[in-house]
Amino acid sequence: MTVSPLSSALFGPLLSDEETAALFSDEAVTAAMLDFEAALAVAEERAGAIPSGSAARIAAAMESFRPNVEALGAGSARSGHPVAALVGLLRKECGPAADHVHRGATAQDVLDTALAMRLSTALDVFDERIAAIVGTLAGVARRHRGTVMAGRTRSQQAVPTTFGLKAAGWLAPLGRHRRRLAELRPRVLTVQLGGAAGTLGALGSRGIAVMEGLARELGLAAPPTPWHGQRDGLAELASWLSLVSGSLAKMGRDLVLLAQSEVGEVSEGSRGDSSAMPHKSNPVRSETLVAIGRANSGLLASMHQAVIQEQERDGSAWTLEWLTLPQMTVLTGASLRLGLEVARSIEADKQRMMRNIESSAGTVLAEAAAIALGEHCSWEEARRIVGKAARAARASGEGLLDILERETRAPVDWASLRDPSTLLGSADAFIDRAIESANAP
Amino acid sequence: MTVSPLSSALFGPLLSDEETAALFSDEAVTAAMLDFEAALAVAEERAGAIPSGSAARIAAAMESFRPNVEALGAGSARSGHPVAALVGLLRKECGPAADHVHRGATAQDVLDTALAMRLSTALDVFDERIAAIVGTLAGVARRHRGTVMAGRTRSQQAVPTTFGLKAAGWLAPLGRHRRRLAELRPRVLTVQLGGAAGTLGALGSRGIAVMEGLARELGLAAPPTPWHGQRDGLAELASWLSLVSGSLAKMGRDLVLLAQSEVGEVSEGSRGDSSAMPHKSNPVRSETLVAIGRANSGLLASMHQAVIQEQERDGSAWTLEWLTLPQMTVLTGASLRLGLEVARSIEADKQRMMRNIESSAGTVLAEAAAIALGEHCSWEEARRIVGKAARAARASGEGLLDILERETRAPVDWASLRDPSTLLGSADAFIDRAIESANAP
Amino acid sequence: MTVSPLSSALFGPLLSDEETAALFSDEAVTAAMLDFEAALAVAEERAGAIPSGSAARIAAAMESFRPNVEALGAGSARSGHPVAALVGLLRKECGPAADHVHRGATAQDVLDTALAMRLSTALDVFDERIAAIVGTLAGVARRHRGTVMAGRTRSQQAVPTTFGLKAAGWLAPLGRHRRRLAELRPRVLTVQLGGAAGTLGALGSRGIAVMEGLARELGLAAPPTPWHGQRDGLAELASWLSLVSGSLAKMGRDLVLLAQSEVGEVSEGSRGDSSAMPHKSNPVRSETLVAIGRANSGLLASMHQAVIQEQERDGSAWTLEWLTLPQMTVLTGASLRLGLEVARSIEADKQRMMRNIESSAGTVLAEAAAIALGEHCSWEEARRIVGKAARAARASGEGLLDILERETRAPVDWASLRDPSTLLGSADAFIDRAIESANAP
Amino acid sequence: MTVSPLSSALFGPLLSDEETAALFSDEAVTAAMLDFEAALAVAEERAGAIPSGSAARIAAAMESFRPNVEALGAGSARSGHPVAALVGLLRKECGPAADHVHRGATAQDVLDTALAMRLSTALDVFDERIAAIVGTLAGVARRHRGTVMAGRTRSQQAVPTTFGLKAAGWLAPLGRHRRRLAELRPRVLTVQLGGAAGTLGALGSRGIAVMEGLARELGLAAPPTPWHGQRDGLAELASWLSLVSGSLAKMGRDLVLLAQSEVGEVSEGSRGDSSAMPHKSNPVRSETLVAIGRANSGLLASMHQAVIQEQERDGSAWTLEWLTLPQMTVLTGASLRLGLEVARSIEADKQRMMRNIESSAGTVLAEAAAIALGEHCSWEEARRIVGKAARAARASGEGLLDILERETRAPVDWASLRDPSTLLGSADAFIDRAIESANAP
Repeated sequence: MTVSPLSSALFGPLLSDEETAALFSDEAVTAAMLDFEAALAVAEERAGAIPSGSAARIAAAMESFRPNVEALGAGSARSGHPVAALVGLLRKECGPAADHVHRGATAQDVLDTALAMRLSTALDVFDERIAAIVGTLAGVARRHRGTVMAGRTRSQQAVPTTFGLKAAGWLAPLGRHRRRLAELRPRVLTVQLGGAAGTLGALGSRGIAVMEGLARELGLAAPPTPWHGQRDGLAELASWLSLVSGSLAKMGRDLVLLAQSEVGEVSEGSRGDSSAMPHKSNPVRSETLVAIGRANSGLLASMHQAVIQEQERDGSAWTLEWLTLPQMTVLTGASLRLGLEVARSIEADKQRMMRNIESSAGTVLAEAAAIALGEHCSWEEARRIVGKAARAARASGEGLLDILERETRAPVDWASLRDPSTLLGSADAFIDRAIESANAP
Repeated sequence: MTVSPLSSALFGPLLSDEETAALFSDEAVTAAMLDFEAALAVAEERAGAIPSGSAARIAAAMESFRPNVEALGAGSARSGHPVAALVGLLRKECGPAADHVHRGATAQDVLDTALAMRLSTALDVFDERIAAIVGTLAGVARRHRGTVMAGRTRSQQAVPTTFGLKAAGWLAPLGRHRRRLAELRPRVLTVQLGGAAGTLGALGSRGIAVMEGLARELGLAAPPTPWHGQRDGLAELASWLSLVSGSLAKMGRDLVLLAQSEVGEVSEGSRGDSSAMPHKSNPVRSETLVAIGRANSGLLASMHQAVIQEQERDGSAWTLEWLTLPQMTVLTGASLRLGLEVARSIEADKQRMMRNIESSAGTVLAEAAAIALGEHCSWEEARRIVGKAARAARASGEGLLDILERETRAPVDWASLRDPSTLLGSADAFIDRAIESANAP
Repeated sequence: MTVSPLSSALFGPLLSDEETAALFSDEAVTAAMLDFEAALAVAEERAGAIPSGSAARIAAAMESFRPNVEALGAGSARSGHPVAALVGLLRKECGPAADHVHRGATAQDVLDTALAMRLSTALDVFDERIAAIVGTLAGVARRHRGTVMAGRTRSQQAVPTTFGLKAAGWLAPLGRHRRRLAELRPRVLTVQLGGAAGTLGALGSRGIAVMEGLARELGLAAPPTPWHGQRDGLAELASWLSLVSGSLAKMGRDLVLLAQSEVGEVSEGSRGDSSAMPHKSNPVRSETLVAIGRANSGLLASMHQAVIQEQERDGSAWTLEWLTLPQMTVLTGASLRLGLEVARSIEADKQRMMRNIESSAGTVLAEAAAIALGEHCSWEEARRIVGKAARAARASGEGLLDILERETRAPVDWASLRDPSTLLGSADAFIDRAIESANAP
Repeated sequence: MTVSPLSSALFGPLLSDEETAALFSDEAVTAAMLDFEAALAVAEERAGAIPSGSAARIAAAMESFRPNVEALGAGSARSGHPVAALVGLLRKECGPAADHVHRGATAQDVLDTALAMRLSTALDVFDERIAAIVGTLAGVARRHRGTVMAGRTRSQQAVPTTFGLKAAGWLAPLGRHRRRLAELRPRVLTVQLGGAAGTLGALGSRGIAVMEGLARELGLAAPPTPWHGQRDGLAELASWLSLVSGSLAKMGRDLVLLAQSEVGEVSEGSRGDSSAMPHKSNPVRSETLVAIGRANSGLLASMHQAVIQEQERDGSAWTLEWLTLPQMTVLTGASLRLGLEVARSIEADKQRMMRNIESSAGTVLAEAAAIALGEHCSWEEARRIVGKAARAARASGEGLLDILERETRAPVDWASLRDPSTLLGSADAFIDRAIESANAP
């Protein structure tokens, strides 16, 4: 059964990400659960909670242990999770150490920690990919400092900008996302160990020592307390995943708009075929970035609903997380894969950019014209004159500055206004600031 | 790769539904796409759009056709969907009929129709399951007409009700869902055939005839127009799926609350093990109903976002549907499976219900006491007296009616008030109305 | 305090709708609650549940009754709703009839019924507005049957369509929404009367008669059972609201895209000023339609979360509805107001439409060219030739058909292909079907 | 018009928060917009962008300036925002300085900065309130270190915990939220100044100096670049708001469950009246905390959808923020107000806690019994024996330990097991760690 396009052979190559998806396979989940049990035994043995030698015996048993997947699935149907079944099967392999497997732990300790272990890997991958996109876009921004294009606001050509500044606008949030990731890591990548109801009661006075030993063993942080019912870390992570795919969706959205037949200024590189039309080449990856951004925004709400857990452990809200966080993580992986591909293959058409500015009959120069005129009359008057000329230009196709030059007597240097590259204000400075800020530690 | 718990061998037996999930496997999607192409050829041949004999040749070629799944996946990565690749491979098998495959259609025609075909099956299954749950709950409601329990409002015991009425409250929305389903079917289960941009331009004047023939061939309705950009049908279906799983989640939520250690009035039958605690038996299926209801509520938002499509066909919003609707459908299938299991195995503990009423020191009788007292003084005065007595009863554990009998002189027949079964008002009538309404055509 | 832009004097004229918003003012809520109490008294008196003459006395008291709003607000802070406070104040005005006010009812009966009463008005208004938009768009569709424009799929020009068909695509879902509304009305516009916990226990054997009398009195339907905990009706209504504003957002989205400087084919009529740029005219109303559609999609999730109510009455989930449904209703009212304004003022620029087709170097004719060529070679070969020519046309700006005419020897009648109006397939038929279907009962 | 319960006199005292709501009144929005214009003039004068003396003239004009609110509203309907109208009215007051008002800025600069200014105040208030709740709950946690109660997992009594640890579990996330707030402040509380399309083109080479001067003037940070299209800061803030209200909703949820008639262990202090039942006292504030948490979770999705902005400035996505963020902020303010009230008035009933443990026939001691037995047989065997005894205890009401003592011969010290306070493991240590961590800088 495939169900999710993220695990489909038909749709996965577009929508999924192999490296991230691998972390959520049944095999990876099972392996991480067993790693938890092995590390727990080591930590408990060191803390004196189970007899010396137990951890080695359990580790030895694991070597050839291949749990029956059907039995684990049946366990889930019965218990709400596969842990009781897995522990039961594992104990059978452990001989005299059976009683020292999973000592004092509860199912949620196993699954939450196994999740944190795999998220740790995913976040490393994501951080690298974001850095790679930032680096690539910084190159685009620098190369296209001088590539003038129409800035577009509320779907209309407004004033000139540069493609370099546009690329800088895509990378700036990504730099912030890296900082956010560094901040949230220690809150999210922690072991879960609380036992039946969060007191580690079955470990007597050795609970803290076991928890800290387990954290060291697994390379995760030790949280102040168990977080069975405190899911702010996971919800914060989900918010971050949605922010990342949202920022890439904004880039994708811009690229789709810039790739429209009537705009044609930027292409994402190789593009999609149509089954009906031989001439079409669709911005498939950019469209997918948007779809993923929207999907993650919706899923985020469920992760925040799951913060509202009940009492010491809550079956419903915990299960809701399983239905949500894995797909958010894989979608974000796919978003970063696609984002990097797109960033690397972006092609800007400078001629088309300039032609589009010109074909608007120069209305993109209207603000500058009003400012220049405003030196010689009131700002209000200048706006009025330019607004009227702009409407005439749109209607007739005649250039705005031609009309203004003819219709006004103010001693404006109209020629110099015709070059939009003189109207870029702080565009270059903003590019530098964005790159510098994204690379700041 | 599993990614989604709905296709996981570890978690699927709890969270998924085999019968529904099978409709979203790569095999089922591919088979439905091919069924579309076969039926299209039949309809086009009949309408004179392709030469006589083409449909038979295409059907023959399909018999041994086993498309390479990797090639289809690669096609998705390139084109945004696997249709162009599938049609390309199929044409190679069709010899002289190659040119008559997929004539005048576009990829979205194929995938949308293939979805409608499989949804048609799913909705049949769902309707049957809802009917089965309604039938089962009607039995529970009838059997438990006389099973008095505390009605609980805002988490507090309020006045007496019956377990029969509670069951009737679970079934009433399900009956309405069946009517909603009958209403939406013709809007959702329609063929999609619009060609490149919704005009069926490549079919000249034969478009409508082909569309209607295709609909007949596939047992779907023919829509007024193609719905490439009109997604109200799918969003309406998604709303319905969320309503169904939401109503079952309400039942699940009630069952979790009634199964609490301190309440213990109803159990869902066999229950979940704990990995830590030998004595625990958790209401796993009821909790899962709640998780599914919440997950579907969140996913619904994405299906409604996807209504906001652009122009003639929109890559992003269409892709967003793929990331959302299959899982909503399978989750609803799982919800109905679990709901039926739970409805069939519900066990009510009448003694415990009565004990819980008594252990509240009779405060569940307070409204009745106030009404009875109100015959002999103002309603306000009656409320004040009973309120004071109720606080005293809660504090001391003494029975409310004992206190009132002692503290007031009004000639109330206190004895008859002690039997909560006399205070049930229209409970029985409501049970009958709910069952009758749910079974109305 | 304004808080919501829907009740802001600054933002409301854009984002709100006076007629709908008036239904959710404190005054309207209070008036509806009092109407409920008056009608309840009438129904109870008729059923013999309160003494003859009580209803008249209560009605008389209401005439001069002006409840202190601060006292009602303080009541909400204390009780979770203003009903207890309102009933208390009202009783003080009713003299000997005080005890017969609100007899056997609970706060949720009052507020839910008061909601249904006002929704009934809102839905009448909405139905009329949808009908008006459908009528207006039908006119647009008929007038623009022959207005050829580029169909655009996945952001690219695809094949020719007509502006008439585009308008028909906007109206078709609206017609379905009217049918959906007719179907859901009897499920949503019902009285709520269940008493403390849904049994109408305090009314003894008169409950059903009172409920049916109340329904008659208020012009609402009598439901099979109280729906304190069955919120499928409200969630279905919320889905419908989101569908309506979603379909209008799709129209808005199309209009924004068609209004882009580089497209300029359709304008929404008078448009928005910029504070910075004298030449800008922004498609403000179309953008707002999109914003409202997205907002309602998100809010819908909360209404479906609220289906998961607990036990006989649930304080949290009920409160969640208050935070959600009023704004969804007003947003939908605003969407319909803006949608009607926009539909009435749409201006299509036929010349620009044709120029945009031409400026794509004729690639919008590629499918037709491939079909024509395919008469003389295999479809695959035809697609290959046209694809190559389309790429050349895009690169050089030379017309696609010019290239094909020069490069191929097939005896195609290229001249007739140059007229896109011959390539419209079933566009006209689809317009007729859409209008007919939207107007069907 | 009230529309939103957050600005309703009827519902606001429960659901809103005066101090926060005041920041979103029309008056506060207008005042902040004018503060922006005043500060901009100061910064521009200093940077030499407008003539010396202009700022003072503009400030003087503002003193008596009372913009016509209707005109501003009409401006919104026309332009999509009230800024153009406000600037127009203001200029009329400024005499010769008219041309130097709003120089080089765009409407979004004004509204985004005016938002940041008010959010800055809100976040100060929120931080203080969180600190107050943390402090209060730390007191509860310390006082109730020794207050033993049943830990409850998946709705069932599990093993003993303490009310102190439960309170520590509520405060731990709040401590993390304060750290998150400190981290996000500099990313969110920044000025917006980009001019028409984010280049500050109209300010020539003075743009950066003006932006930095403006930031200093307003006490906000200067961002690397304008963020018209980069909304990660606002979406991050929205995530934080939802996390805060989500964590308080978890506390509310626990309190509702603990206040149930059958549990009765903790009350939120003074509680809500029922309009029907004299004896009811409902946990209204706790229920409201849950409603707010769920509402914010849903609204969060819209703020993340709004990250997907188009091009240099996007009318739709920006408007979507207005429909969402103000209510999220006020809801969070209300959540913190209620959370603090509840934290301060929590009353725990130690006797009832102990009675509830006992009434479960001691099954809360089952894990400890199994561990003790496991010293004398295999863990599996111990689990089996205890599980069987627990079922017998549930059925008969006899104590679990009584049964075990009778049925097993193992030399277990059963008497010492009977005291749940010996089974608390690391509960105390976790309380200390939670408080220490929440108070860490």
